[in-house]
Amino acid sequence: MGGSSFGNCFVISTWGESHGKAIGAVVDGCPAGLSVQEEDIQKYLERRRPGQSQYVTARREDDRVEILSGVFEGKTTGTPISLMIRNTDQRSRDYGNLASSYRPGHADYGYDAKYGFRDYRGGGRSSARETVARVAGGAIAILLLKELGISFCTYAKAIGPVRAEAFDPAKINSNPFYMPDEAAAAEAAVYLEQCMSRKDSTGGIVECRITGVPAGLGNPVFGKLDAVLAQALMSIGAVKAVEIGDGMAVAGRKGSENNDSFYAEAGIKKKTNHAGGILGGISDGGEIILRASVKPTPSIAQPQETVNAKGENIRLEIKGRHDPVIVPRAVVVVEAMAALVLADAVLQNMGSRMEYVRDFYRNGTHKN
Amino acid sequence: MGGSSFGNCFVISTWGESHGKAIGAVVDGCPAGLSVQEEDIQKYLERRRPGQSQYVTARREDDRVEILSGVFEGKTTGTPISLMIRNTDQRSRDYGNLASSYRPGHADYGYDAKYGFRDYRGGGRSSARETVARVAGGAIAILLLKELGISFCTYAKAIGPVRAEAFDPAKINSNPFYMPDEAAAAEAAVYLEQCMSRKDSTGGIVECRITGVPAGLGNPVFGKLDAVLAQALMSIGAVKAVEIGDGMAVAGRKGSENNDSFYAEAGIKKKTNHAGGILGGISDGGEIILRASVKPTPSIAQPQETVNAKGENIRLEIKGRHDPVIVPRAVVVVEAMAALVLADAVLQNMGSRMEYVRDFYRNGTHKN
Amino acid sequence: MGGSSFGNCFVISTWGESHGKAIGAVVDGCPAGLSVQEEDIQKYLERRRPGQSQYVTARREDDRVEILSGVFEGKTTGTPISLMIRNTDQRSRDYGNLASSYRPGHADYGYDAKYGFRDYRGGGRSSARETVARVAGGAIAILLLKELGISFCTYAKAIGPVRAEAFDPAKINSNPFYMPDEAAAAEAAVYLEQCMSRKDSTGGIVECRITGVPAGLGNPVFGKLDAVLAQALMSIGAVKAVEIGDGMAVAGRKGSENNDSFYAEAGIKKKTNHAGGILGGISDGGEIILRASVKPTPSIAQPQETVNAKGENIRLEIKGRHDPVIVPRAVVVVEAMAALVLADAVLQNMGSRMEYVRDFYRNGTHKN
Amino acid sequence: MGGSSFGNCFVISTWGESHGKAIGAVVDGCPAGLSVQEEDIQKYLERRRPGQSQYVTARREDDRVEILSGVFEGKTTGTPISLMIRNTDQRSRDYGNLASSYRPGHADYGYDAKYGFRDYRGGGRSSARETVARVAGGAIAILLLKELGISFCTYAKAIGPVRAEAFDPAKINSNPFYMPDEAAAAEAAVYLEQCMSRKDSTGGIVECRITGVPAGLGNPVFGKLDAVLAQALMSIGAVKAVEIGDGMAVAGRKGSENNDSFYAEAGIKKKTNHAGGILGGISDGGEIILRASVKPTPSIAQPQETVNAKGENIRLEIKGRHDPVIVPRAVVVVEAMAALVLADAVLQNMGSRMEYVRDFYRNGTHKN
Repeated sequence: MGGSSFGNCFVISTWGESHGKAIGAVVDGCPAGLSVQEEDIQKYLERRRPGQSQYVTARREDDRVEILSGVFEGKTTGTPISLMIRNTDQRSRDYGNLASSYRPGHADYGYDAKYGFRDYRGGGRSSARETVARVAGGAIAILLLKELGISFCTYAKAIGPVRAEAFDPAKINSNPFYMPDEAAAAEAAVYLEQCMSRKDSTGGIVECRITGVPAGLGNPVFGKLDAVLAQALMSIGAVKAVEIGDGMAVAGRKGSENNDSFYAEAGIKKKTNHAGGILGGISDGGEIILRASVKPTPSIAQPQETVNAKGENIRLEIKGRHDPVIVPRAVVVVEAMAALVLADAVLQNMGSRMEYVRDFYRNGTHKN
Repeated sequence: MGGSSFGNCFVISTWGESHGKAIGAVVDGCPAGLSVQEEDIQKYLERRRPGQSQYVTARREDDRVEILSGVFEGKTTGTPISLMIRNTDQRSRDYGNLASSYRPGHADYGYDAKYGFRDYRGGGRSSARETVARVAGGAIAILLLKELGISFCTYAKAIGPVRAEAFDPAKINSNPFYMPDEAAAAEAAVYLEQCMSRKDSTGGIVECRITGVPAGLGNPVFGKLDAVLAQALMSIGAVKAVEIGDGMAVAGRKGSENNDSFYAEAGIKKKTNHAGGILGGISDGGEIILRASVKPTPSIAQPQETVNAKGENIRLEIKGRHDPVIVPRAVVVVEAMAALVLADAVLQNMGSRMEYVRDFYRNGTHKN
Repeated sequence: MGGSSFGNCFVISTWGESHGKAIGAVVDGCPAGLSVQEEDIQKYLERRRPGQSQYVTARREDDRVEILSGVFEGKTTGTPISLMIRNTDQRSRDYGNLASSYRPGHADYGYDAKYGFRDYRGGGRSSARETVARVAGGAIAILLLKELGISFCTYAKAIGPVRAEAFDPAKINSNPFYMPDEAAAAEAAVYLEQCMSRKDSTGGIVECRITGVPAGLGNPVFGKLDAVLAQALMSIGAVKAVEIGDGMAVAGRKGSENNDSFYAEAGIKKKTNHAGGILGGISDGGEIILRASVKPTPSIAQPQETVNAKGENIRLEIKGRHDPVIVPRAVVVVEAMAALVLADAVLQNMGSRMEYVRDFYRNGTHKN
Repeated sequence: MGGSSFGNCFVISTWGESHGKAIGAVVDGCPAGLSVQEEDIQKYLERRRPGQSQYVTARREDDRVEILSGVFEGKTTGTPISLMIRNTDQRSRDYGNLASSYRPGHADYGYDAKYGFRDYRGGGRSSARETVARVAGGAIAILLLKELGISFCTYAKAIGPVRAEAFDPAKINSNPFYMPDEAAAAEAAVYLEQCMSRKDSTGGIVECRITGVPAGLGNPVFGKLDAVLAQALMSIGAVKAVEIGDGMAVAGRKGSENNDSFYAEAGIKKKTNHAGGILGGISDGGEIILRASVKPTPSIAQPQETVNAKGENIRLEIKGRHDPVIVPRAVVVVEAMAALVLADAVLQNMGSRMEYVRDFYRNGTHKN
C-alpha cells in the first residue's frame, strides 16, 4: 500500500531513488518458461536512456540491467524476477541547493508534507529516473505478450504545439522524438531549439497502439481495462491526462457518430474504432489506442519564484541536467506501463469461464 | 480480482445487475463512529435517480437505500456497511430482443467473449444502473470527508458542444444538467431537444473540484493520487478520458507557463493551479480539479448495423428507455468516485511518519 | 483491509451482525457458467443451522439464502454473486445486560479497545453467526471444485477429551457431532450431558480431508497453500491451533520417520502422508489433511468474574442460548473455508506456465 | 499474487534463490523517520546465519545486508526499502545430482508439477535460505515496534522430544539451540548428537512471546490477528502447525477452565492467558503467545527411496551441507514473521475510529 506495486496476477514492485545506490523492480507472478535474457530487457532501457541526443539530459547512465533472480538457464521459473540497475553517474552535489527549496512543478513540497522530510537528491523517489525500473519490468510483460501475438507501437503524437499528422511507423525510430511523421519531427526540432535557447521546456503527447488483443480482456466495474490503463499511464510522473480512443473528443459527439458498428467478416469486426478497442471496460478485439498528455519538464534553468522549507519566499535557479522535453523518453515508459496492464489482464482471464477451468484440470492441460 | 472492489483502507465492493433483484455495495474499512443515516445516503441517490426530467430515462426506480449492517444506533461500527437498493421497475421484456445482438457502443460483445454468455437484461452488470451502488458507498466517503473539511463541487462542464463558460455554483442545482452557467444550460436544452428529435444522443464533460484537501495525500509511483483518481473516473462506463488540472492542454505548454509558483502567506500557497492540486502524485494543498469526458449514450433509437451472437450482420433497433445524455446523472457518480479515492488516501496517510505512529501509540491518542 | 475479504482470484467478502437485519457474502471472481441454485447453497447452511439437536443453541433461524446477483438462468455470470440470509429470530433483549460488560473469552473488550464502542447484540460482528455467510460463499467454492473432482470429508475428530479413533465416513452424518466413530459419538454425548448439567461447555477438534487435489497447487513463500489454509481456519472465531498433516507431532520426529517416500505407480505417489498433502507450500498430489482445534464455547451459564466498560470488577451471568460445544456446527465452516482456499488456488494456477498461456490464447481454447 | 508479498500497510516482498546471485526483500509502507542502519538489520541476520555451531549447516555465508534504497541520512524516507544479501558460497555442484530427483519431504515435485521445471540448485526458491530476506525485512518491523514498546522473546521450546520446562530468558542466547532452559539444552545436545551419528535429523518447537501489545489490534473475520499470524508462521517452510495461546490443548478443556477472567487494576487485565493475548482476532492487551511446530530437516544423509522426473523409482543419497535441526535458525524467522504482522496491524489501526481521524486532520497532528 506504499504505492510501489501494481497488478493482480502479474505484479511489479519498484524501488530506488534517483541518487541512491540502485533502482530496481521485482516482477512476481510471471508464468514459468518465458525466455528472458538481460539483453532483451536492455533494449528497452536503451530507448529511455539519457545522453542520446541533444534533446535529453546529458546525465550519463549506463543503465545496465542485472537479473538477480527468477530466471534459470534462460527461462523464467515462475518465482520473483529481481531486476537491478545501478546508479553510476549521480553527481548529487548539483542538487545540494535544492535540499530546502520547493521546486515549482515538482513533488518536493508534497513529499515533505507527507513524510516530514525527503531524499532531495535529484528528486529522490519522485524522479523520472524511477521509471527505469518500470521499463525493465515492462520489458518482461512485452516479451510475454509477444508470444501471444500482442504488439505495441508507441510514439510521440505531439511535441509542444507540433503534432504528428502523418503516421509512418517506419519513421518512429529515425528521429530523436520518436515521431511517426518526419516533417513534424523537423518542426519539433526547431521548436525545441527555441525553448532551449530561452531556458524553457515543453510538453507533448505520447500515443500507444496495441494490436493483436483478443476480445474479452478486462474486468467489469472498477477493474475495467481502460480504468487500469488510465491508472497506469497517469502514474507516470508528468502525465496530466489520459485518453482512450477518441478520448476528450467524444464529449462533443452524437451517439450516431460515436458508436462503432460491428460487422461479421472472418470473425466480428468494427467499421470504426472511436472506442479505442475497449467497450464497457472489456476489449472488443479492435486496436487499443491510448494517449497520455505529458507536461513540460518542470526543471527549467530560468529563475523561478518559490518557497523554502522554512516557509520563506525565495528565488530559485535550478542547475543540473534536465530534459527540455520528457516526451521522447516517456514513449517507452508508456509502452511498458500498457504492457504491464495487458499481461495482467491476459493472466486474469484464463479462469473466466468454467469450461476453461474444467478443460484445464480434467482434460489434461494440467498434466500430473 | 473480479474487478468489483476498489480501495486499500476504505474499500468498496459492488454487486448487482440492472434487472436483477437488487444492487448493492459493501464498504469495509470505514472508521467507527461516523454518523450515517439512510437519509444521508438517499440524498446522493436522488441526484442520479432516473425519471426526474425530460432529459433522463423515464425508467422509474424508487432507489431506496437500505443499510443492512455496519451501523448501530446511527453510527458506523467499523465493520462492513452493507447497502442495498432493490430494483423495482425492471420491465425486462423491453430487452428480450437484445439477448442475442451486440449493441454498438456497449459491452455486450466483450462480455460474451469473456464469459461465454451474459445477463442481457438491460446490460446486466455493465449497465449504468450499477453506479447506483457506487453513489451509495461514495456517500459514506463524502460524509467522512465532510468532517475533515473536505468538500466537493461537481457539475457538467459541457453538454455536447455547449460549454459552461461562467462558473456560478449557485446555479448548478437550478437546471436539469447541473451546469454552473445558466445561459449554457439553456443552450444545452435546445441542443438536446435537437438530438432527441433525431433519435440521437450526446456526450459531455463532468468537472469536479475538491477543496480543503491538505497537502501530502497520495502515494508515490503507481499509487499516485491522480493515478488512482484516473482509474476511479475511467471506471465509470461511458468515460473515455480523464484530466487532472489543465489536462490535455499541458502538452502544448512551456514549462515557464505551466509551473505553479509557490508563495508563503499563512502557509504555503500556489499562485496558479495548472497542476490541479496534485504534483508528483501527492496533493499540494491546492484545489483538486478533475474532468471526465463522457461519451454520448450508445443506446439510440435510430436503426444501427451490427452483428448477432451467431455472427450474422443485422439491423438493430433499440427500444426501452434511455437517457439522451448521461452527463447529468454522471455528475454525482464522478463525485462519489472521487470521494472514495480521497477517503482512502486520508486513512492511508495516518501512518506516513514515525512521529505520527509514536504519538498515536505512546502519547495516549490510542487509549487503553 | 477491514478484514472481511479473503482470496485473490476467487474472493469472498462477508458482512453482517448477529442481530442486524441480515448477514451476507459477496463472491467475486467465480468463473462464468457454473450451475448454482439456492438449494445447492441451502444444503450447506442446513449443516450449520441452529436448533437441530439438544447440543446446539435453541436459537431458531430459518437461514434461507437468497441469491441477489451474479446468477442468470441458473448459471454464474462471472460477476459478483451476492448472497443474503435474513436474521429472523433475533431476540436482542437477551443481550441487553451485556452491553457494558466484557464477557470472558469473547472479543467484547478488544472491539471496544479498537473501535470505541460496539454492536453488543449477540456479539455483533464477532458472533459465530457471521460464519453463515462463509458457508454460503464456501458452498459455491465446493460446487466449483466438485466439477474438477475435488471433494471434502470433514468431521469432528474430538469432542472434549473424547477422540474418534475409528474412521467410518458413513457414520459422520448419523450422529449429532458429525463424528466418524459411533462409539466415540456415544461417549461424547455422555460427556456433553455432564458439561451441560454443570452449566459448562467443551471444545474439540475438526478434521478435514480433501481428495482429488492435483499436485502443483499453491504458491511459494508467503502464499503457500498451507499458510493460506492456516489463515483460513484460524480466522474461524474459536479456533486456537491449526495443523497440516501430522501437525504438532512432527516436532518430536526424526527426518527418517517423517519424510514421505515417493514412488512411481500410475503417476507419482507417496508411501505415507505425514506431510498432509502439502510440501513446501505446494500440493503434492496426496490427500490434504487439516485439523483445527476449537476452544470450548466461552458463553457459559455459570457466573463469571469480569470487568465492565467503566473498568469496574463485576460478576456476570450470561443468559441467552448458546451451544455447549461449537464443534458440530464448525465442521461445515472449516469445510467452507478450506474450499475457498482451494478454489482460489485452482484459478491462480492456470497461468503458472507459459505453455498454458500460449495454448490458451493461440491454440484456440480462448475462442473469439 | 505470485505469493512473495505479505502485508497490507507494511508490506514485504522477497525474491531470490538459494544459489542465485542474491536474495532480497523490499519493504514498502514503512513510515518515514524510523532510524535504520545496516548494522541494526545485520544483528538479526547473525541469529540465523549458517556456520555458527556444529548443529547447523557448514555452509559459509557472510550474509551481509546492503540497504539499496528507502533510507536517507539514517532514516527511512517512507518509500520502498530495498535490502539485498549477496549469495557468496553457493557450491551448486553439490546439488547437480538432485536436478532430476524428487527429494522426499521437499517441494521439488510440487514445483515441477506447478511450473514444469525448477531451479534445482539448493532448492532454489523453496530453500530455507529464502528466509534470510524475511529476517532482513522483519528486522525493520522489529525496530518500528520497539519504538512503541512492543518487544519479542523467541526461543526453542523443544528440540525433538526434549522440551524446555524451565523458562529463563537469560539463558536463551547461551546455548546453540536458543532454549530458555539450560538442562534441556544439554539434553538436546545429546539427543542431536545421536541423530547426527545416525545420519538423521530432528524437529522441534519455536515459541514466541510478544509483550507491550495494546488491546485493539487486529481485524474482525478473515483479517483476525491470529489468522494472519497463523499464515505468517505456517509460511515458514518446515512449519506444520501453529498454536495461539494454549493451542491444541483447548480442545480438551471446559469453558470454565479456558475462559480468562478480566479484572480491573490500573487498566483492564486478565487473570490467566489461555487465549494467548488474542480474543476474537483482536489483541486483548495480554502477552501474545505463539508456537510453531517445525518438522525435522528433510535433507538427511541416509539413502532414501524416491522417484525421478522421468517417473522412475530410484534410491537417493543427498549430499551437501544440511542442518540436523532447523529449529535454532528458525527462531529468528518466527520472530521476524510475527513482527511483520504486528507492524502491519499497528499501522492499520490508526484509522479505526473517526475520533482518531478527526484529531489527526483537524487538531493539528497533520501539520501543513
